[in-house]
Amino acid sequence: MAQFKILHKSGKARVGQLKTAHGVIETPNFIPVGTQGSVKALSPRDLREIGVQVVLANTYHLMLRPGDQLIKKLGGLHQFMSWDGPIMTDSGGFQVFSLGVALEHGVGKLLREEETKAKPRLNKITEEGVTFQSHLDGSKQILTPEKSMQIQTNLGSDLTVAFDDLESPKHNYEETFKSLKLTERWELRSRGAFYGVTHGGIFKDLRIRSAKFVDQNFPGIALGGAHKDKKTLYQVIEWTVANVSEEKPRHLLGIGEVEDLFNCIERGIDLFDCVAPTRRARNGSLYISPKSGGNLKNNFTLNISKSKYKGDKNPIDNWCNCYACQNFSRAYLRHLCVAGEILYHHLATTHNVYFITNLVKKIREAILNNQFGKLKALWLTD
Amino acid sequence: MAQFKILHKSGKARVGQLKTAHGVIETPNFIPVGTQGSVKALSPRDLREIGVQVVLANTYHLMLRPGDQLIKKLGGLHQFMSWDGPIMTDSGGFQVFSLGVALEHGVGKLLREEETKAKPRLNKITEEGVTFQSHLDGSKQILTPEKSMQIQTNLGSDLTVAFDDLESPKHNYEETFKSLKLTERWELRSRGAFYGVTHGGIFKDLRIRSAKFVDQNFPGIALGGAHKDKKTLYQVIEWTVANVSEEKPRHLLGIGEVEDLFNCIERGIDLFDCVAPTRRARNGSLYISPKSGGNLKNNFTLNISKSKYKGDKNPIDNWCNCYACQNFSRAYLRHLCVAGEILYHHLATTHNVYFITNLVKKIREAILNNQFGKLKALWLTD
Repeated sequence: MAQFKILHKSGKARVGQLKTAHGVIETPNFIPVGTQGSVKALSPRDLREIGVQVVLANTYHLMLRPGDQLIKKLGGLHQFMSWDGPIMTDSGGFQVFSLGVALEHGVGKLLREEETKAKPRLNKITEEGVTFQSHLDGSKQILTPEKSMQIQTNLGSDLTVAFDDLESPKHNYEETFKSLKLTERWELRSRGAFYGVTHGGIFKDLRIRSAKFVDQNFPGIALGGAHKDKKTLYQVIEWTVANVSEEKPRHLLGIGEVEDLFNCIERGIDLFDCVAPTRRARNGSLYISPKSGGNLKNNFTLNISKSKYKGDKNPIDNWCNCYACQNFSRAYLRHLCVAGEILYHHLATTHNVYFITNLVKKIREAILNNQFGKLKALWLTD
Repeated sequence: MAQFKILHKSGKARVGQLKTAHGVIETPNFIPVGTQGSVKALSPRDLREIGVQVVLANTYHLMLRPGDQLIKKLGGLHQFMSWDGPIMTDSGGFQVFSLGVALEHGVGKLLREEETKAKPRLNKITEEGVTFQSHLDGSKQILTPEKSMQIQTNLGSDLTVAFDDLESPKHNYEETFKSLKLTERWELRSRGAFYGVTHGGIFKDLRIRSAKFVDQNFPGIALGGAHKDKKTLYQVIEWTVANVSEEKPRHLLGIGEVEDLFNCIERGIDLFDCVAPTRRARNGSLYISPKSGGNLKNNFTLNISKSKYKGDKNPIDNWCNCYACQNFSRAYLRHLCVAGEILYHHLATTHNVYFITNLVKKIREAILNNQFGKLKALWLTD
C-alpha cells in the first residue's frame, strides 16, 4: 500500500511524497483523468514528457468496456495502457450515482463531461449496493463495495477509493445524514481501499463526523461530495483538514482549476484530479499565465477559436515550455481547431496538461522555499 | 528548384535523390498527405521519428482556409506547420474538378476522402480557369494556372505542380483529347511549376503525347488522371515511362497501396502520395506484413475493430518497430478504437504511416542490392 511522507510545511500547505508500487508522486500534485484507460489525445510518453506523475482511470467505464477481468487477463491496466507510473482509480460510485441523483434534482453541473456522454440509468439503491443499466448496451449491472474493490484490484490500481453514496446538494440535513451513514457502512465494506471519501454536504457536524470516520479507517483522505460554490468548498476543506491526521494525504476529488489549486493547497490539500485541462482543450479553452493575460476573470484561459488569433504569431503562452508552445503559433492552433484537425486535440491537450502540471510543480517549489504566498499573489490578483 | 539524381537502377526500378531547399528526399518514397497543413493526428516530430521525409499539402484547402496570403504573412507553410522538411503542393485542380466531374458522371470512387467532406461546387470552366463556390462559406472563387502557381509560391512549396484539367474516366477519345489540350495550355501558363501532370485517359497516343509534352516542359513528371483499374494504371505507367527522360523524377499522383508500391516502382515510378495510410487508420484498417497474415486479398490490413482482437496481446504487427507496435497490444488499440478515444487515431496513424514509410525504405534497399524481385515475391505471392 502507498505510503505518505511530509517533507516540508508552510502554513497549512505541505510538500510531501506519496510512494506507490509504481513510483513516487510528489505532492502537491495534479492527476489528469484517463477515463477509459487513456488521457485524451496523449500517449504515455507524452505524459512522461509533460511531467505527469500519476493518472486516474474510471472504474465505471472500464468495468463496462473492455471489462476489468479482460484487463486483468492482459496483465492489468498498467500494461494495458503502457503506463508504468502510478494509477489511481475511483470507486465507480460517482458515475453511477451522479446521473441518477443529478437528473432527479436537475443539477447537471455536478457531472463531469464524461458522465454527460456515458449515461447509466440508475435503477435501485439498496443496502447491498446499486443496480443500474449500462450506457453501452442497457445490460443490468450491479456495483457493491466489494465489487468495486475487486474491480480496482483487477485493474491493478495503486491508489484505490472506497465505495460511497453521493449526496445531492439539494438534500436537507436528514437526507444528507442518511446518505452519510450509508456511505460509512459501504466504506467499511470497501476492504483494502487506500482512500476513504468524506461526505456530509454543507453541514459542519456531518463533515466533521465524516472526516473523523475516514481518518480512523483509511490511510488516505479523499474529500468528496458536490460543492455548491467555491466558498462552501473552501469551508468544507477547512472543516475536514482540521479533523484528520496531519500525516495522511488529502485528495480533493474532481477539482482542479488554477484558482482552486492555490486556494485548496493553501488549506492543506495535497492532491487533485480533474478533467478541466483535457476538457477545456477540446473546447478551445487554453490556459495562459498572468504575464500572458491570464486572470481570475478569464479563468486563466483564452479561447483559441476566436478570430483575433487568426494571424497571431505568438505561442499560446509565451512563458510555457510545452511542445505546443515551443513549436506552434496561436494562428496555427486556431487553424487546426477551426478546421477540426485531430492534431489540434493533441497539441491543445499537451499544453493544458503541461500548464497545470508545471503550475503545481512551481507551487511545490514555492512551498519548499516558503514563497507560496508570493506565488499565489502573482497569480490571483484581480 | 529541386534537383534529381539517380544513384542506382535495377530493371526499370531506380534509387535516387531529390534535392530540395528543405532537404533531400530519397526515392522511391511515399509522401503522406497533410491536406490542411497537418498530417492527420501526427505532429512534425512524429513524422520525423517515423522517417517521413516530405509531406503534401493541398492548395485548394489552404487557399480557402486559413488562406495562402495569411500563411505567407506568417512565414510560409513550413513555419506555419513547423515542418522544416520538403513540402509538395498540388495545383488545386484535382479538388475543384473532381467533384464537379465525379458528381456529373457518378464516379464517386475517384474522390479522395478529403473531397467527400469538402464539397466545392464547380460553376464554370473557361479558357481562363475555373470558377467554383467554396465548400466553407459558398463564396465565389476562381482558380487559374497563374493563381495556382501564386498560391503554391505563397505557401513556400518545394515541389509545385502545374494546373491541369481532369478528364473523366467516362470521357470518350474526343472529350479526353479536348481536355488534354486544355491541360497543355494551362500547364504552359503554370510558369515555374516543378511537376507537369500527364493526362490522356486510357488512350495510348494521348498518353504518349502528354508524356512527351510534360517531359519537354517540366523538370518533373507527375502522372495524373483517374485510373479505371490497376491493369490500366500499370499500362499508363508503362506508356508514360517509355516516353519521358530517364533522369527526371516520376511522381504517381494519389496512389500508394502496398500492391501499387511494388508494381509501380517496378515500372519506374519514384514517388507516391496517397491518403490511404491516414484514411485507413481512421477507419480501423491497420497494415500488417505477410508474416502477420497480410496478403493481396486483405490489402495487407486487419480491421482492428473486430471482436476477435478483444483479448489479443500481440502488437498490430509483430515485425513493426513503430511506437504503437512497440508499446501497445491489438487489444488496447481495439479498445481505444471502439471507445472512440482520440489516442486511437494517433497510434493507428503512427503505425500505418510508419509501415508504408518503412516499406518504401526496404524497397530502396532492395533495389540498391538488386533484390527487388525477391522482396516483391515475399510480399505479393497469393
